[in-house]
Amino acid sequence: MVTSTIGRRIRLGLIGGGPGSIIGETHRIAARLDGQYDIVAAALSSNPERARQAALDLGIGAERAYASWQQMLEAEAARPDRIDAVAVMTPNDSHHPICMLALDRGFHVICDKPLANDLAQAREIAARAKTTNAEFCVTYCYTGFPMVRQARDMIRAGELGEIRQVHLQYVQSYLAGHDLPAGWRTEGRAGSSLVLMDIGTHAFHLGAFVTGLDVTRLCADVGSAIPGRPIDDYVSALLRYENGARGSLWVTNAAAGSEHGLSFRIHGDKGGLEWHQEEPNRLIHRRQDAFEEIITRRLGPATSEGAQRSTRIAIGHPEGYLEAFANLYTEFAQRVATRIAGTPGDDQPTRFPSVSDGVKGLAFVAASVKSMATGGWQDVERM
Amino acid sequence: MVTSTIGRRIRLGLIGGGPGSIIGETHRIAARLDGQYDIVAAALSSNPERARQAALDLGIGAERAYASWQQMLEAEAARPDRIDAVAVMTPNDSHHPICMLALDRGFHVICDKPLANDLAQAREIAARAKTTNAEFCVTYCYTGFPMVRQARDMIRAGELGEIRQVHLQYVQSYLAGHDLPAGWRTEGRAGSSLVLMDIGTHAFHLGAFVTGLDVTRLCADVGSAIPGRPIDDYVSALLRYENGARGSLWVTNAAAGSEHGLSFRIHGDKGGLEWHQEEPNRLIHRRQDAFEEIITRRLGPATSEGAQRSTRIAIGHPEGYLEAFANLYTEFAQRVATRIAGTPGDDQPTRFPSVSDGVKGLAFVAASVKSMATGGWQDVERM
Amino acid sequence: MVTSTIGRRIRLGLIGGGPGSIIGETHRIAARLDGQYDIVAAALSSNPERARQAALDLGIGAERAYASWQQMLEAEAARPDRIDAVAVMTPNDSHHPICMLALDRGFHVICDKPLANDLAQAREIAARAKTTNAEFCVTYCYTGFPMVRQARDMIRAGELGEIRQVHLQYVQSYLAGHDLPAGWRTEGRAGSSLVLMDIGTHAFHLGAFVTGLDVTRLCADVGSAIPGRPIDDYVSALLRYENGARGSLWVTNAAAGSEHGLSFRIHGDKGGLEWHQEEPNRLIHRRQDAFEEIITRRLGPATSEGAQRSTRIAIGHPEGYLEAFANLYTEFAQRVATRIAGTPGDDQPTRFPSVSDGVKGLAFVAASVKSMATGGWQDVERM
Amino acid sequence: MVTSTIGRRIRLGLIGGGPGSIIGETHRIAARLDGQYDIVAAALSSNPERARQAALDLGIGAERAYASWQQMLEAEAARPDRIDAVAVMTPNDSHHPICMLALDRGFHVICDKPLANDLAQAREIAARAKTTNAEFCVTYCYTGFPMVRQARDMIRAGELGEIRQVHLQYVQSYLAGHDLPAGWRTEGRAGSSLVLMDIGTHAFHLGAFVTGLDVTRLCADVGSAIPGRPIDDYVSALLRYENGARGSLWVTNAAAGSEHGLSFRIHGDKGGLEWHQEEPNRLIHRRQDAFEEIITRRLGPATSEGAQRSTRIAIGHPEGYLEAFANLYTEFAQRVATRIAGTPGDDQPTRFPSVSDGVKGLAFVAASVKSMATGGWQDVERM
Repeated sequence: MVTSTIGRRIRLGLIGGGPGSIIGETHRIAARLDGQYDIVAAALSSNPERARQAALDLGIGAERAYASWQQMLEAEAARPDRIDAVAVMTPNDSHHPICMLALDRGFHVICDKPLANDLAQAREIAARAKTTNAEFCVTYCYTGFPMVRQARDMIRAGELGEIRQVHLQYVQSYLAGHDLPAGWRTEGRAGSSLVLMDIGTHAFHLGAFVTGLDVTRLCADVGSAIPGRPIDDYVSALLRYENGARGSLWVTNAAAGSEHGLSFRIHGDKGGLEWHQEEPNRLIHRRQDAFEEIITRRLGPATSEGAQRSTRIAIGHPEGYLEAFANLYTEFAQRVATRIAGTPGDDQPTRFPSVSDGVKGLAFVAASVKSMATGGWQDVERM
Repeated sequence: MVTSTIGRRIRLGLIGGGPGSIIGETHRIAARLDGQYDIVAAALSSNPERARQAALDLGIGAERAYASWQQMLEAEAARPDRIDAVAVMTPNDSHHPICMLALDRGFHVICDKPLANDLAQAREIAARAKTTNAEFCVTYCYTGFPMVRQARDMIRAGELGEIRQVHLQYVQSYLAGHDLPAGWRTEGRAGSSLVLMDIGTHAFHLGAFVTGLDVTRLCADVGSAIPGRPIDDYVSALLRYENGARGSLWVTNAAAGSEHGLSFRIHGDKGGLEWHQEEPNRLIHRRQDAFEEIITRRLGPATSEGAQRSTRIAIGHPEGYLEAFANLYTEFAQRVATRIAGTPGDDQPTRFPSVSDGVKGLAFVAASVKSMATGGWQDVERM
Repeated sequence: MVTSTIGRRIRLGLIGGGPGSIIGETHRIAARLDGQYDIVAAALSSNPERARQAALDLGIGAERAYASWQQMLEAEAARPDRIDAVAVMTPNDSHHPICMLALDRGFHVICDKPLANDLAQAREIAARAKTTNAEFCVTYCYTGFPMVRQARDMIRAGELGEIRQVHLQYVQSYLAGHDLPAGWRTEGRAGSSLVLMDIGTHAFHLGAFVTGLDVTRLCADVGSAIPGRPIDDYVSALLRYENGARGSLWVTNAAAGSEHGLSFRIHGDKGGLEWHQEEPNRLIHRRQDAFEEIITRRLGPATSEGAQRSTRIAIGHPEGYLEAFANLYTEFAQRVATRIAGTPGDDQPTRFPSVSDGVKGLAFVAASVKSMATGGWQDVERM
Repeated sequence: MVTSTIGRRIRLGLIGGGPGSIIGETHRIAARLDGQYDIVAAALSSNPERARQAALDLGIGAERAYASWQQMLEAEAARPDRIDAVAVMTPNDSHHPICMLALDRGFHVICDKPLANDLAQAREIAARAKTTNAEFCVTYCYTGFPMVRQARDMIRAGELGEIRQVHLQYVQSYLAGHDLPAGWRTEGRAGSSLVLMDIGTHAFHLGAFVTGLDVTRLCADVGSAIPGRPIDDYVSALLRYENGARGSLWVTNAAAGSEHGLSFRIHGDKGGLEWHQEEPNRLIHRRQDAFEEIITRRLGPATSEGAQRSTRIAIGHPEGYLEAFANLYTEFAQRVATRIAGTPGDDQPTRFPSVSDGVKGLAFVAASVKSMATGGWQDVERM
């Protein structure tokens, strides 16, 4: 079960995610769900007026309803009851300056993915987080699902044998219409390749998280499935993992009629696992010498430690995306609370994706873009 | 989208649901999710020491961490910043005295199902709620799912034509082991028939909610699927609805290997709808003159008003049981806020199940038990 | 694997199932599939001209293209190369006279379900089959599916423990339109209750076949889901099996938008099995102490003897309804070939449904109709 | 409905597929199912004794139970009642000599896939078939499924708009064990790449058949998922279609625990289609502006002409692999019968895969092997 008691509640400041923002509401619900945070400060918009009003609407005191993120970080740094952490959910191109200042002012950071707009920025953030000794979570939120953690734990425990094949998909229809929706994603603020930055990094990280393996080489076909548009909406790639396993990946936001479409299918010597975010409470376990098995949270104690720790309710009640997102928030809160209490860190593996996972996402983007330009295989740069 | 702004946050007092209680944690998450409540008072256990300590652990101030529900209701009634509402999640046999006093002291009430331990008690509560003019929600939580509301709205709009056949299932394995688990449910505090009270009322209400029709007659087979045990764990019933539609119901908590198992399948002149709580984000729409259709929240504006109003996130992200539960809490908060503001009630239909739905649940239990005793069809008493 | 070698090919005569008859084409494909029959004689229609022409069109020699079933049975009885068996696929009300004469003339019989138009007729046929020592198959064709036999074998082997709960469904849309289609089924030639005779007997037998248990008592709600029509299109029933297990059944051909809809779900002490004819190659195995398992034919040797003997192809290639139907034909051919060869019968259990299974189907119909008339529980008559 | 009447039954000679051969039994059932063939000659094994005995066991007359395929082709060519066609189901490396002689002797040919062992051989066969004016079917059997044809017809009719993305999978576990099974497939007689020849060509052709588009370029990762084995068991490829559509393909017979695993998912401007051979009677239709639809054969007249013509039974009865295979045989019989009758060919598009489809399969294999060797994109050679 998800723990709902920690030392004291974490004081959180929000940056971005103002009115009408889906990701903003998602972060806020994730922070509220387990009662581990007090949202006490916010800079919710790049427009000063809107930023302050939105914070007031959320019930934040007038004094801490800030007009800009710079103002918030500086003012909070000076308060005796200063926030412990900031959560960043602004457009990609502002992640770097925000994270750098937040780290410099001594805050722990939750940052939405992708970590930054390019690999160099991402590496700078990671280096700064190391020097400031900050806790840092990149919200690759799909790693929060109990069945994703079940998969990871089973693979770690050798239940599939050596991993041999990985197939990742993220097939959406968000950009399948011929007219692009307005917004920063399609206005050039999303980095070198929209589809890679926006959803490709999610699929890529999911594969790494579940297998515990890094991709070392890849060959990618990146471009526009829908001709004539100025953004990438399609990538398919051949992957080679560090242990020699082969993989492939199909990611697009232009597959008309699709819904969410994130999934993995992984095979090792002894069997395979398949998971779809659209039915997140089921994990298909194919076994070479036994019938297929459907793993769910029903048999609580029979699930892995990671699955148990990420579950709130039982007996078949479905959990969803918000609970998965909240798992990252709650685990982050527990780490920060440990730091505040000054106690030695627990021996529990950090489950939430780290800043180095964020860097790897950008390395994947860089290698894919380079592969497309050269028409062949490319190495993926390491940290 | 679920509205997350109301006049002011509702002050809530909790009764029951202390440490280790799954339903307690569920109610608390539901209250937290949309940020519409402040949980400011609690009487969390029948043991005074445990009650107070649990409240403190939840972060409730010492003054309002009560030793008993009686103490809480009397003390809160006298405070200027008194709670607006209480949420009752105690064993069934205490619902009646708690609800009666809470209503007498002027509080609005959220009460877990079944409303009371028998039909007479339920009617008394309903009558009292009427005289005190209270808002009253019975947490038949499965009505909070967007796709359940989609089904209700489609049927109301005549998309299935006249309703002809209803089939309800709630097939669990909770009591499939030969040894009964300990707890009030199996210790005689759950009313005349455990299976009917505990989960039968959920299935029964779900059918009524979705079709908008009441059952007028039934013929039930109630008993123990597992021989020799002192409690009921099985009911199957033939149903007749007020419009002449035929129905049937299979409810058990003793079907070994089952998971949650709540579902409905309903057919009208033009087609049918099927929903399973285990995959709550899909609604199967069978059409007589067209191919089967899978309704999801993907095409937001194409879903019904009720589905849209109960949805938090989009593009295929799954929502689950906690969000459904929270929908009842949030709608209740909105009603109470309207009352507090003294503004005329909105014209929006109350979605959350009412006290009269609670009474009907007990009428179903009474008719089923009587049918089993007589071996034939019985009328279901009206309010 | 299905055996495709027997002593000699069986000489078969067809009665009914002429041009345009779906069931006729089904029987013929079933006879052809494994190459165990020569179709050498036929009386394909009640119209003498059409009967002869249809037989010629099928490639049957002019001499044995008969104008009527009476003519065929008498003429064949007199031939030295006479047919071994007849296959009867005429409207229900002619089964009795045809089967009686066929048995009297010494033929083995394959007869479509239901065996006869009422229980008395069915008992007469069964008695005659006994006195003439004939092989007799009633084509409850759904028992031919490998996964249905897998279920039967697992239950026999005790893998579910004692059977406690049975739920059967057969939910079609064939008569969901307000205007009844023309044909003998809706013109009063289908016995006392169309829905019970036409598809109810299939569901009922499926439950008995898989569990190995007979129903001893039932309480049924039989009638028209669509008001005002002169035929039954709906039955829901509460069942009690000989071992005390409880069951229920929902059978209708008037559920708008449904497809085939035959399924069973059965629970014993240790787990449950669920099967749907629409996805016949999967058997869902719910286990009380392990995760759900999907049984398929993939692991050939791990499936039951009955499943293996009914399988033609492997490695996931789907088999369907025609193969299931052919399994009954081929097993019947093997029995007849054994009889012709004069060798002692093999010790292999007869898999194909027998004449006594046919009688039980009519007993179920009779008890259901009586229960509806009296409004209460009725005993099901034994053979 | 599948037509079961033609001019006269086709006289067929079998080459290969003797005792114990799964593919042999499959071809024979396919030939028997619709009653359009008489199997009158056979050369069933490369061992003369076994060849003759196996033919006798199948009921073929002693005179036409041949010791070798050479003997059969020469002897049959000289008979007045000579066979019309031969069906070839021998190991890949014998397809070329057999087909060449069969064509030279004036027979029509059904040949299992792949057409030959390399592209040059395949082109020779195609050229010879043209000069001898023979009917030629390559049994890419999965194109025989009604829902596959439904997909093809829908795409032809523009229901998906312009095709933009194609994803093909064929993920089996046949070679997932570390020890290779014995047999010609793993003994070097399967051509340049086992996985490409054995199942890759199936997936590749399926994509071309359904979309009506050829692949013009590809970049492939071909090799052994299981290290150290001497055969290929894995291919993943990036595809470019003639209209600019992008595609990808994942084909392996070494994914432990998998079942059959053939599927396609195709997206155009307006929506997408997805089909899995393991559930062949359902076609998932995702629509950009409407809810997902599940296309089945239930609404017969609402399905496409190609689906209707390949369907034998209705109302939800599942059809399977053998029926799909039989569809190719029956359509081939109809073409041959037309040729025998000397009537002008019907205007009906030939549905069964042709010799040029066989050539394209080998071109795909050649391009994939070359791409792997060079590490980049390669053109796929045209006919």
